[in-house]
Amino acid sequence: MYFATYLENGTEKIGVLNRAKTRIMALENTGLEKILNPCPKTMLEFVENFNEEVLAHLQGLTEKDFNGSSVEVDKIKLCAPIPYPRRNIFCLGKNYLDHAREVGTVLGDQNDIPKDPIYFSKVASPATGHGDVIEYTDVVTRLDYEVELALIIGKEGKNIPREKAEEYIFGYTILNDVSERGLQKRHGQWHKGKSLDSFSPMGPYLVHKSMIPFPVELEISCSVNGEVRQQSNTNNLIFDIPTILSDLSLGMTLRPGDIIATGTPAGVGMGFTPFKFLNPGDVVSCTIEKIGTLTNPVK
Amino acid sequence: MYFATYLENGTEKIGVLNRAKTRIMALENTGLEKILNPCPKTMLEFVENFNEEVLAHLQGLTEKDFNGSSVEVDKIKLCAPIPYPRRNIFCLGKNYLDHAREVGTVLGDQNDIPKDPIYFSKVASPATGHGDVIEYTDVVTRLDYEVELALIIGKEGKNIPREKAEEYIFGYTILNDVSERGLQKRHGQWHKGKSLDSFSPMGPYLVHKSMIPFPVELEISCSVNGEVRQQSNTNNLIFDIPTILSDLSLGMTLRPGDIIATGTPAGVGMGFTPFKFLNPGDVVSCTIEKIGTLTNPVK
Repeated sequence: MYFATYLENGTEKIGVLNRAKTRIMALENTGLEKILNPCPKTMLEFVENFNEEVLAHLQGLTEKDFNGSSVEVDKIKLCAPIPYPRRNIFCLGKNYLDHAREVGTVLGDQNDIPKDPIYFSKVASPATGHGDVIEYTDVVTRLDYEVELALIIGKEGKNIPREKAEEYIFGYTILNDVSERGLQKRHGQWHKGKSLDSFSPMGPYLVHKSMIPFPVELEISCSVNGEVRQQSNTNNLIFDIPTILSDLSLGMTLRPGDIIATGTPAGVGMGFTPFKFLNPGDVVSCTIEKIGTLTNPVK
Repeated sequence: MYFATYLENGTEKIGVLNRAKTRIMALENTGLEKILNPCPKTMLEFVENFNEEVLAHLQGLTEKDFNGSSVEVDKIKLCAPIPYPRRNIFCLGKNYLDHAREVGTVLGDQNDIPKDPIYFSKVASPATGHGDVIEYTDVVTRLDYEVELALIIGKEGKNIPREKAEEYIFGYTILNDVSERGLQKRHGQWHKGKSLDSFSPMGPYLVHKSMIPFPVELEISCSVNGEVRQQSNTNNLIFDIPTILSDLSLGMTLRPGDIIATGTPAGVGMGFTPFKFLNPGDVVSCTIEKIGTLTNPVK
């Protein structure tokens, strides 16, 4: 099932899409209040209160054609699935071998491959939706894109066992980990260069894990103005999803609604000679199999 | 004025202290609903809705002795002033010269002084209150303390001019930037080593800026089991508060309730030979003039 946060006539709603992903039905129109009362008003509340009964109810609904209590997807404005996450996004750095090599090459040591996961965080409150602008401001000198598979946590967990990792996942979305390389370098730690306003496009949908076999092996790509720049498969992660969840949760509780971005493959702008950074007018499209395409213009 | 978030008979409240800081009055008992209706239920709502009229009303109240609608401070349980910040804490690394030197000495270059601010983030949702335990878990090998002056943002701002910095501040509190040095090193970026559960003690109070002359020149110290380890003055910051607010807000909007920790002076555990890391049973007290003392046991 595909969930979305969206604006309909200026009101923020959460909804579920039909199988063809042509129509969306607001959660409040699905009869969900028979199971969850009051009906969740935000994606965070929905994720926190989700259970097997909710799953069965909504699966039954999305198997049929949607009736009049739904709207066409192209009549609404998609927001980031979780527009106001409770904590910054947990991000992994250099988690595909080919990307670690391309970064290492630029920095002078192509064999600088992480032996342990590199974690940093990205401000994403508010997060940027599908179609929203990535802002090219005065602060920007070397603007880069990074397509990433993002996990949404569904269940609170600490010291999560590797073999139980999937239990703690609610679903998946796409993150474009937009990065200002100049600031990333200037400030030593990466935090600010990853956290400018509009630097966290996410979406278009939050896909429930029931749609995606585990272990997660999905084609992942990014194109700029139609030119494919990044292309890989999520089975190429250096630290895979069970490793990430078990390692990140050591001594640190993960909570429902937390977002973990799993890293980006080779082909970012700084990986080309000469560099291929983003410029105003560019359009970036991040695609992951079974999730969709997240597109954002640069302005 | 001194504000606090606290538990009274298991209910979370926000309140204001009398001048002697012996009694606390719940905001809902201050008659504030004549100005702010509904009366804010969380410190975040309070900070967002604060204005000159609220200030004058509460100042008038705290100048008198508190009446029966208040309780003794030692009858309540203090929480972190903002127990669930909306975004991770923005932190500055190596922002006192003596601390930059002690870290540089350990890492092999005592002249590695930051030329630009180093920003990283710390998970603090939930944040840890005065008196709460700093957890010494299996993940911990080199547990360290760092007393820091923390700013609470009061007004949304982007590209904040240096000379207007104070306008954007609501007030101040103390943060103990608890750090696990082993993880800080292991993961390359500092994020996770700063973000384990219980690693963000904050408090005891949120002090309104009207109590503290600007520029902020406050004695700051940290002691472990009564032994003074850190001692400095906030006028020793390498990047001062106007610089931090103007630089951090370049291209990135700061929002009411955001917390910015300004860095720690020399004397952390890793700065001693041999190291003086924290052990179970230790008690850490962080003191800043005009704010108070934040004490937490290690268990």
